[in-house]
Amino acid sequence: MGRPFVFINSAMSADGKISTRERKQVRISGDIDFDRMDALRAGSDAIMVGIGTVLADDPSLTVKSEKRRAERKQAGLEENPIRIVIDSKARISPDADIFKKGKGRRIVIVSESAPSSKVRELGDIATVIVAGRDKVDLVASMSKIRDIGVRRLMVEGGATLNWGMVSSGLVDEIYTFVGNLLMGGITSPTLIDGEGFTEEETIKLDLMEAEKIEEGVLLKWKLLP
Amino acid sequence: MGRPFVFINSAMSADGKISTRERKQVRISGDIDFDRMDALRAGSDAIMVGIGTVLADDPSLTVKSEKRRAERKQAGLEENPIRIVIDSKARISPDADIFKKGKGRRIVIVSESAPSSKVRELGDIATVIVAGRDKVDLVASMSKIRDIGVRRLMVEGGATLNWGMVSSGLVDEIYTFVGNLLMGGITSPTLIDGEGFTEEETIKLDLMEAEKIEEGVLLKWKLLP
Repeated sequence: MGRPFVFINSAMSADGKISTRERKQVRISGDIDFDRMDALRAGSDAIMVGIGTVLADDPSLTVKSEKRRAERKQAGLEENPIRIVIDSKARISPDADIFKKGKGRRIVIVSESAPSSKVRELGDIATVIVAGRDKVDLVASMSKIRDIGVRRLMVEGGATLNWGMVSSGLVDEIYTFVGNLLMGGITSPTLIDGEGFTEEETIKLDLMEAEKIEEGVLLKWKLLP
Repeated sequence: MGRPFVFINSAMSADGKISTRERKQVRISGDIDFDRMDALRAGSDAIMVGIGTVLADDPSLTVKSEKRRAERKQAGLEENPIRIVIDSKARISPDADIFKKGKGRRIVIVSESAPSSKVRELGDIATVIVAGRDKVDLVASMSKIRDIGVRRLMVEGGATLNWGMVSSGLVDEIYTFVGNLLMGGITSPTLIDGEGFTEEETIKLDLMEAEKIEEGVLLKWKLLP
């Protein structure tokens, strides 16, 4: 297998939105779901997001639990999984929290169209991988990160990267926490945006698990071939 | 109370879409969920959809079960609940299935901006209610249909009417069947489109029920004030 096992983990509103029309990240889930997400992070080799999510939310993507970080160290791992940003034009700021917070390796995957000065600058604080001409080639990226040892990859959005990964056939499972609120909005980011599938292209799923957690429901889906 | 009890019933994909980017209605749920929907119809005084749904899907909105239709008749009711279309500009065709299929009353709610010739034409085959200047005033509409005896109203979409109803504070409960497929698409209709809520405006829900049905999950939410 030329790529890691890939899963998307995301909270969404009861109407399938991952943030409001203002692109504001609203807290959708509670402490139990946050802890579940933290455990998923700690159990992954790498955590990946798209540049849109970095620009909107500036996440650190670190493991929050001290105990889990200690366990990773005892297992001979870095405290935090590798943090990967898909960033075709190298738009990420060197001041992003992903670079400043927590220990561990960072990878920025850019395309050949990224400004070379920006790529050099990022090279000082992260591993830069070039894949694809105008935008990042996700299939090639998965192969490259598998080659450097990533066997289990957690994708934390956003809507555009989720689409890129799913439509490229690169996702094995999707875990959604469906929270107890409505966001609405024709322009609000949904779990999977992008171009969208035609009727014939829609991807079939197998429901592995449905569990009430706090005020919402955790749904675990396996993507069928 | 000046309006009916109102609930939205809708199937959506695991990523919150009610149809594909082509606006094609894809079968999201199976026979058990269809039967559940039919029972909800039979138990309602009226079923309401937006004109977009009529133009895209041409639904008849009839009760499919012969037994349920017979039970309604035995109870002194019409075989089918009143069918209501929200249609600001009176765009519905007199040939729409909603007029041609099944017995029972039809109501088209238009705004003052609807062409009067079209309104007269519709008057021959349906009750026409005028509410609102440029677009249908949903609050006034609910009051008017309550006055003619609708106490329990089922809303079957689409995304724009759902937004209008929810954002006007006219919905009591939402039932979503979350099906085992992914549709994706930044332009694909979601459960609730429209303008969208800001962070402060998001509507809180109470999860009344979460039940696995066939290959998906039925979620029943109550809207909190």
